[in-house]
Amino acid sequence: MAFNILRAARAVLHVTDLKASREFYVKGLGFIVTEEDNSAIYLRGLEEHCHHSLLLKKAESHCAEVMSYKVHGNTDLDALAAVFENRGMKTKWLEKGSQHAIGRALRVQDISGLPIEFFSEMDHAERMLQRYDLYQGAKVQRIDHFNGAVTDVEKACEFYMNDLGFRCSEYTVTEEENIWAAWLFRKPGVHDIAFMNGNGPRLHHVAFWLSDPMALIQGCDVLASLGYSKNIERGPGRHGLSNAFFLYLRDPDGHRIELYNGDYLTIDPDFKPIRWDINDKRRQTFWGAAAPDCWFNEASEVMDVHTGKQMETAKPSLEQHKPTFII
Amino acid sequence: MAFNILRAARAVLHVTDLKASREFYVKGLGFIVTEEDNSAIYLRGLEEHCHHSLLLKKAESHCAEVMSYKVHGNTDLDALAAVFENRGMKTKWLEKGSQHAIGRALRVQDISGLPIEFFSEMDHAERMLQRYDLYQGAKVQRIDHFNGAVTDVEKACEFYMNDLGFRCSEYTVTEEENIWAAWLFRKPGVHDIAFMNGNGPRLHHVAFWLSDPMALIQGCDVLASLGYSKNIERGPGRHGLSNAFFLYLRDPDGHRIELYNGDYLTIDPDFKPIRWDINDKRRQTFWGAAAPDCWFNEASEVMDVHTGKQMETAKPSLEQHKPTFII
Amino acid sequence: MAFNILRAARAVLHVTDLKASREFYVKGLGFIVTEEDNSAIYLRGLEEHCHHSLLLKKAESHCAEVMSYKVHGNTDLDALAAVFENRGMKTKWLEKGSQHAIGRALRVQDISGLPIEFFSEMDHAERMLQRYDLYQGAKVQRIDHFNGAVTDVEKACEFYMNDLGFRCSEYTVTEEENIWAAWLFRKPGVHDIAFMNGNGPRLHHVAFWLSDPMALIQGCDVLASLGYSKNIERGPGRHGLSNAFFLYLRDPDGHRIELYNGDYLTIDPDFKPIRWDINDKRRQTFWGAAAPDCWFNEASEVMDVHTGKQMETAKPSLEQHKPTFII
Amino acid sequence: MAFNILRAARAVLHVTDLKASREFYVKGLGFIVTEEDNSAIYLRGLEEHCHHSLLLKKAESHCAEVMSYKVHGNTDLDALAAVFENRGMKTKWLEKGSQHAIGRALRVQDISGLPIEFFSEMDHAERMLQRYDLYQGAKVQRIDHFNGAVTDVEKACEFYMNDLGFRCSEYTVTEEENIWAAWLFRKPGVHDIAFMNGNGPRLHHVAFWLSDPMALIQGCDVLASLGYSKNIERGPGRHGLSNAFFLYLRDPDGHRIELYNGDYLTIDPDFKPIRWDINDKRRQTFWGAAAPDCWFNEASEVMDVHTGKQMETAKPSLEQHKPTFII
Repeated sequence: MAFNILRAARAVLHVTDLKASREFYVKGLGFIVTEEDNSAIYLRGLEEHCHHSLLLKKAESHCAEVMSYKVHGNTDLDALAAVFENRGMKTKWLEKGSQHAIGRALRVQDISGLPIEFFSEMDHAERMLQRYDLYQGAKVQRIDHFNGAVTDVEKACEFYMNDLGFRCSEYTVTEEENIWAAWLFRKPGVHDIAFMNGNGPRLHHVAFWLSDPMALIQGCDVLASLGYSKNIERGPGRHGLSNAFFLYLRDPDGHRIELYNGDYLTIDPDFKPIRWDINDKRRQTFWGAAAPDCWFNEASEVMDVHTGKQMETAKPSLEQHKPTFII
Repeated sequence: MAFNILRAARAVLHVTDLKASREFYVKGLGFIVTEEDNSAIYLRGLEEHCHHSLLLKKAESHCAEVMSYKVHGNTDLDALAAVFENRGMKTKWLEKGSQHAIGRALRVQDISGLPIEFFSEMDHAERMLQRYDLYQGAKVQRIDHFNGAVTDVEKACEFYMNDLGFRCSEYTVTEEENIWAAWLFRKPGVHDIAFMNGNGPRLHHVAFWLSDPMALIQGCDVLASLGYSKNIERGPGRHGLSNAFFLYLRDPDGHRIELYNGDYLTIDPDFKPIRWDINDKRRQTFWGAAAPDCWFNEASEVMDVHTGKQMETAKPSLEQHKPTFII
Repeated sequence: MAFNILRAARAVLHVTDLKASREFYVKGLGFIVTEEDNSAIYLRGLEEHCHHSLLLKKAESHCAEVMSYKVHGNTDLDALAAVFENRGMKTKWLEKGSQHAIGRALRVQDISGLPIEFFSEMDHAERMLQRYDLYQGAKVQRIDHFNGAVTDVEKACEFYMNDLGFRCSEYTVTEEENIWAAWLFRKPGVHDIAFMNGNGPRLHHVAFWLSDPMALIQGCDVLASLGYSKNIERGPGRHGLSNAFFLYLRDPDGHRIELYNGDYLTIDPDFKPIRWDINDKRRQTFWGAAAPDCWFNEASEVMDVHTGKQMETAKPSLEQHKPTFII
Repeated sequence: MAFNILRAARAVLHVTDLKASREFYVKGLGFIVTEEDNSAIYLRGLEEHCHHSLLLKKAESHCAEVMSYKVHGNTDLDALAAVFENRGMKTKWLEKGSQHAIGRALRVQDISGLPIEFFSEMDHAERMLQRYDLYQGAKVQRIDHFNGAVTDVEKACEFYMNDLGFRCSEYTVTEEENIWAAWLFRKPGVHDIAFMNGNGPRLHHVAFWLSDPMALIQGCDVLASLGYSKNIERGPGRHGLSNAFFLYLRDPDGHRIELYNGDYLTIDPDFKPIRWDINDKRRQTFWGAAAPDCWFNEASEVMDVHTGKQMETAKPSLEQHKPTFII
């Protein structure tokens, strides 16, 4: 391929109350504020040497504006644009200078309708990895992955794997052998993006990497002390899928954030994707606890990159929209 | 007082399949087997220098035979017997030799009908604390406390505090200011026994102490690997009450076991019991997750120390038998 | 006995720069400041509901003023005074009001010349145990024990055990079967005071309890980030003795502080003290690393409770003042 | 480049007592034995889906036979051979079938004289990542990197970066601005190989990745329980360089093994290598403790890939062979 997508790099979320969001993300999750004003906050994790991995924009209503991937260089963007255009998918360029702290960017609605963005340049920032004296809350280290609810997981996977060069680490099949969910990666971990069967296109969650399991426990304690116990939606627990130690939170606007530690190395080309049956109870939560209904049903609406309006959602192609042992 | 109750010391449980119980308690929880035969298994935690803290007896049906407390010396037993007899409560002596590995013991049905036992002597066993090469599963260190469901928590507390010398560390009140639950201790931690409003008398759970929070996480992982994910009933989580990091399990017979790490020191006479409102969401689970219904409704039947038959249970005196935010 | 010593309760240390000490103890170790002015800082751990467990007083030169024990009630103080006076040991009373935040206190130079204090009343303070949002650095939870260098460990032990009611959990003997060090307790853990053969009387260290091993690792990270890597003297490591996970620090004046997690329950009267040979390499550091020379040779000078001057020190009665495998 | 080196993939070490090595690596470090016979043991970490990452061969004397890298495909091997041959470096082919469990392999003495190997195929093995019931000791997850002592670090770096496509994450300079050590990577972490100024060529250590910091602490405890406290050479501690939580062990033959957890993501092309002064005390051990002399002076001799004899070593080009604050 004439381009190299490196990794999930940033999420741009619309929030309705910047002050409330700041409290949650900074004191609760431990993000570092790189810059902020009345209209936006730029946040980065403790090990990140780039300007931000999470951009919160003040808006009338909450939604997910875009999920961004970093590519190797500027020419990769043109090669990517060609892929989309050959497919008849409309692209949008945001020239350098039009967005703060990042270079030229390409936006497009992906095959499932999810708004995605590619860029190669972002301003640098001081890495705080060894400023342990500034660590707070869950001590978020770096962005890890996105998870999107889509109406046709199989179609989404084919596009990302064949056209964009993603590989699959794990996947879930229904009793009829349809792909119900899949975990795809560019950087050699479990995922940069996962797709899950559901009303879509919607952003199910953005996940951030923690340094170790105890950081997640401490995150829970600090969040509860700050009054966010109602924002803890699911976990802590171990995923069967990915083997990660996880926690799902809802931010003050309801955007879902996963805190994540675990993973494994997927760099070998002969690594074989791991298959799970949807009704294997250990798939979702290795320790057996079922996810609450809201975890399956609720997700963030996403924006149309061309109109700036919220995308309409449709029902998924597979009827079974959560494991039977829960229904 | 003419006696000194030291601590919760052992639980005697009836189980229907010793082999299944052994697998769960030894490989899953990490107990050391001190002795075993076709009729019983004597288990101890890794730091325990006494013969056992959990005695599993083979029986036709599962139930809790007795909760035992260690007292300072032999004469304390006589002083205790006098307390019960003055109250008109029938005592039962098991002379030295009648029970394996422990000395003379006094049994009685407590004020709530829970079967309790007092003894001062138990055979010694090698302490395995620094045999880290033998650690398994959740690495249980020692017995910590009992929890009993009783029909009148206030009456139970008055008896244990006034007649037996227990102190209260924390308690929960209903909206009408009735005591719904209480945590009582002799050793200077949060509790040796807790009482909870419910159908009683029943044994709600026996709790064992772990060395650190990660042992609990590893316990979950090992239990799930061994096929016990369905036995994980609640947690891991942080209790608001006691501040402990907890996990509730159901053994193969359904007896509930708590794994417990956290606590604090309560030795000062001027330590003031901590009061919680029953509807404070952080009371039960500091991080906000509600306990499942089975956690409130199910508990082990207990034995009558005189007849050897199961005690009948009665409805609790307080109507509200679980927090309203759950109902 | 007509008195009940509950536990090691506070250390009073003289420091030369309150601001420097505050930075170290608050940001590095995570103490809560209860009160402070130009002459003193009163510090408590996160679970402590009493006014302070560490009192730092501004002075011209650093030294240890006194190690304090909390006793059950006011009359215990008189009974204790009688013990000392019957032994011909001069006592000093500090009436209520003469010391901030504590009641009437009895001071005496113990049999080894160490300055000790007994009191039963201290003002209360808010317990911060569940204010995880305020946790900093090593997250000190509570005071645990003192360690004193004395010239005759055997004599010190006999006095504390026979006259004051302490029990022994572990001890170290030389090749000639002399007691080289001993760990004594009142609260049912490994120790409230330990004695070690050396130039004495001196205060070797004050130890504080941490909630879990990861708090110690994080303490190291935060201390290093704040520029205190030179203050980390020994560890982290596991003691063979006590099984604790430990770290030894030197505060800005050179006072030695131990951070401590591990321990085990010693409440049973039939718990048998654990014996170690001085040359067993796993005794000091279970993992094998030797302690640096400064750890053996350096300690805080102590104050004469009557004159307010520093006590003269003498050489120890046993020649072997550290294990041969280190010499 | 016409080839893609993926990652450090296996070490082949000669050991004199397979039984002693097996005990250390399996019970102490937690490796899984894939295969073994009288002449060799093939070991893999818990997450590894390939046949082995450590091959121990029975030999008369201990030495390091080769450090192996996995490349993307078979043709990458020919492209690599061309690089070496154009440089006048003699290559050696081991055709498929000549080594157990791996395909065709290319061996060469690198620019510093270190024996290295490249291969693209290895037999698969069951991944044990979620068989927590089989976890032992330090629970080694996967191979991470090699560290070689070489006489000219600058020359080694230039060759690996310019000819083999490695990138630099961190490096250390002397007072004269010479490169004293460097950390180079292919997979996007801190390193696959590090070079350190010293008598060379020698293998300083092979490093294995652990899942979390507590696994390292538990590794120490289990190793000590098994009698390996003398094999713990340095740590646990935090490296300033790489930010990893580390432990250095010596296996029964003296080969040095690092247990490693921490790291960070280096996938961005605009990640700038981090520079350290050799005399910055926090470089080596963030917490301040100096490494012992043996850590600087001792390392495993390496084999000549053509003659099978031990390589002669030479003195390093830079005089300063360890930081001055240690000398």
